[in-house]
Amino acid sequence: MKNFTYSISTVVHFGKGQISKLGGEIASRASRVLVVYGGGSIKRNGVYDGAVSQLKEHGIEWVELGGVEPNPRITTVRRGVELCRQNQLDGVLALGGGSVIDCSKAIAAGACYDGDPWDFPAGKAVPEKALPIFTVLTMAATGSEMDNIAVISDMDSNEKLAFGAPACLPSVSILDPTYTCSLPASQTAAGTADIMSHTFENYFSPIETSYLADSMAEAILKACIHYGPKALETPDDYEARANLMWCASWAINGFLDMGKPVAWSVHAIEHELSAFYDITHGVGLAILTPNWMRYVLNDQTEHRFAAYGVNVWGLDPQLPQRELAETAIDKTRAFFNSLGLPTTLREVGIDGEKLPLMAKKARTANFDRTFVPLSEEDILNILKMSL
Amino acid sequence: MKNFTYSISTVVHFGKGQISKLGGEIASRASRVLVVYGGGSIKRNGVYDGAVSQLKEHGIEWVELGGVEPNPRITTVRRGVELCRQNQLDGVLALGGGSVIDCSKAIAAGACYDGDPWDFPAGKAVPEKALPIFTVLTMAATGSEMDNIAVISDMDSNEKLAFGAPACLPSVSILDPTYTCSLPASQTAAGTADIMSHTFENYFSPIETSYLADSMAEAILKACIHYGPKALETPDDYEARANLMWCASWAINGFLDMGKPVAWSVHAIEHELSAFYDITHGVGLAILTPNWMRYVLNDQTEHRFAAYGVNVWGLDPQLPQRELAETAIDKTRAFFNSLGLPTTLREVGIDGEKLPLMAKKARTANFDRTFVPLSEEDILNILKMSL
Repeated sequence: MKNFTYSISTVVHFGKGQISKLGGEIASRASRVLVVYGGGSIKRNGVYDGAVSQLKEHGIEWVELGGVEPNPRITTVRRGVELCRQNQLDGVLALGGGSVIDCSKAIAAGACYDGDPWDFPAGKAVPEKALPIFTVLTMAATGSEMDNIAVISDMDSNEKLAFGAPACLPSVSILDPTYTCSLPASQTAAGTADIMSHTFENYFSPIETSYLADSMAEAILKACIHYGPKALETPDDYEARANLMWCASWAINGFLDMGKPVAWSVHAIEHELSAFYDITHGVGLAILTPNWMRYVLNDQTEHRFAAYGVNVWGLDPQLPQRELAETAIDKTRAFFNSLGLPTTLREVGIDGEKLPLMAKKARTANFDRTFVPLSEEDILNILKMSL
Repeated sequence: MKNFTYSISTVVHFGKGQISKLGGEIASRASRVLVVYGGGSIKRNGVYDGAVSQLKEHGIEWVELGGVEPNPRITTVRRGVELCRQNQLDGVLALGGGSVIDCSKAIAAGACYDGDPWDFPAGKAVPEKALPIFTVLTMAATGSEMDNIAVISDMDSNEKLAFGAPACLPSVSILDPTYTCSLPASQTAAGTADIMSHTFENYFSPIETSYLADSMAEAILKACIHYGPKALETPDDYEARANLMWCASWAINGFLDMGKPVAWSVHAIEHELSAFYDITHGVGLAILTPNWMRYVLNDQTEHRFAAYGVNVWGLDPQLPQRELAETAIDKTRAFFNSLGLPTTLREVGIDGEKLPLMAKKARTANFDRTFVPLSEEDILNILKMSL
């Protein structure tokens, strides 16, 4: 295990009705907040009314910023920063999923920064301060409610980039699984793929001396495989929604990569798909992940995929390692398909035209330090396998 | 899953040499601290010198309280509180294992309380404030470095009681696995049994809708089984020490019982053994746990022990459930024995004389809400099985 610092101070109120704690939590940290949300589903599922009622009850004033995009744009972040400044706001309340929360983080940091907030994703500046961030989560997927990372897109330059800083960790997050019961099946499926992808990215790391972290990752993968289909079959299955929601937070809040040198592969490739074609992140991950697994499977890595097969899929450890590895990858693909997720890029309207350009841009990430280092050509091959 | 609040704000610096961050962390929160430690092993293994050098470097003054007992006494807590008041201290630095940290928590809370600190374990008062607590951990076992619980003994009244409050959560904990390399084998073994017992207590809960938490518990149990023997065989096996240390924190910091109604069985019984005979806590747990498992194994519970056998011990799921359950329990006993831990109370000098009294006193805990509710007679039977 490598040295690390664990510091996740977010207070999480988890469970049905926990929004009743929102007002008190905000009031102890802020008095005027920017309420950030997306397409308006929160006005149908009760989240908006619940939050507003909490704000009123605790005498907290607010200004609203709706219409945050599924891949949140820097233009929206800039609008939010402007609203914070104009109205002298001292907190940001995100009502939504990962996109809304990511956007809120960038706004909260941007409001405390003199330059342009694109400096953060562009790597020109690291946020040192941010307004306190509160979240009411409506989708189990990105884990943004309990980490300090945000991913922001600039559609003019086809860039989708991440940044993170301790200042951007939410102070308080309300995780009520009932809010996710009304999600369309496609989003539940994409969210499950996203959670599993975060887990895979941490699980398949270059070092092997991370038994505890790896066992924890296997626990999350098993829970996703157990509950993903249940949530699709019975959308208001509380246990399924609750387990998926808690899995989402722990897949990416830093817990699974403690003590491991981790550099993510599939996310960096998928970010190019989203940046160029604006497809749903979890869908892109579901298409790419099994192909990435097949591409990096070799004599050196097969025991890792075999262990994944035995510990997560319950395969018979007596089988030959290569067979275990291949079966585990096939099961991964079949599982994503069983959730209704597509297998190919063509199914989501992506043809071969921009693959070389996307491979070139993806390569700017840390592909020298990934589970299996990948060249631009390797990335292009994985994209072609996914066509 | 039941509703819960997750809030573990302790900053953990994990890994070799992380004590270099201690001084800065203390200096930002306190200027005069009580340094609490036990029998003096910290003066041999470098922890004391490392900590003192950090205090000096950051201009932090200190007063010392050594000689904390393995089951810390309320008399020592009172002395610590007195030292804090006399010297107007504003922080407590624990150098040691769970006993030293528990004692430090009680001192930190007692220093901010007008009455006698025994009021906390006695249930007459809940700490509302405490001086900031810092820990440098020297033994992987109790998890006290990352939870807000303390167990304090009054040897005059043969009472060993626990209390907990958010104010008693350590602010910063330094977890350097190398400090545990010089532990005697007996303590490494007892510590491993303690970690596993905490995990069992959370794992075997009355409800079964806690798939994720249960899988996480299985991950910790597997890591203990994997690394406990390695740490005994090669005391300076860094990976073994590091995994055990991190397991210890997560077995009991509240993570494994989130969303579950948990009331512990074996700990409440063992606390009576320690209170009457002052034996090592982990040793008592290792003796009692397999007997408790056998006693509560029945038609209603056998599938839970069978799942434990399959998921932790890798038993063949095709075997009959009762066979799986019994084999899993046998393997638990055999594992503790393989670590050099005793099987019977007689081996640690406990005869049958006080068993009825201990059963009576243990019953005052929450045995109506445990995995299998236990009467005073049940507890006595388990103690007799353990003779």
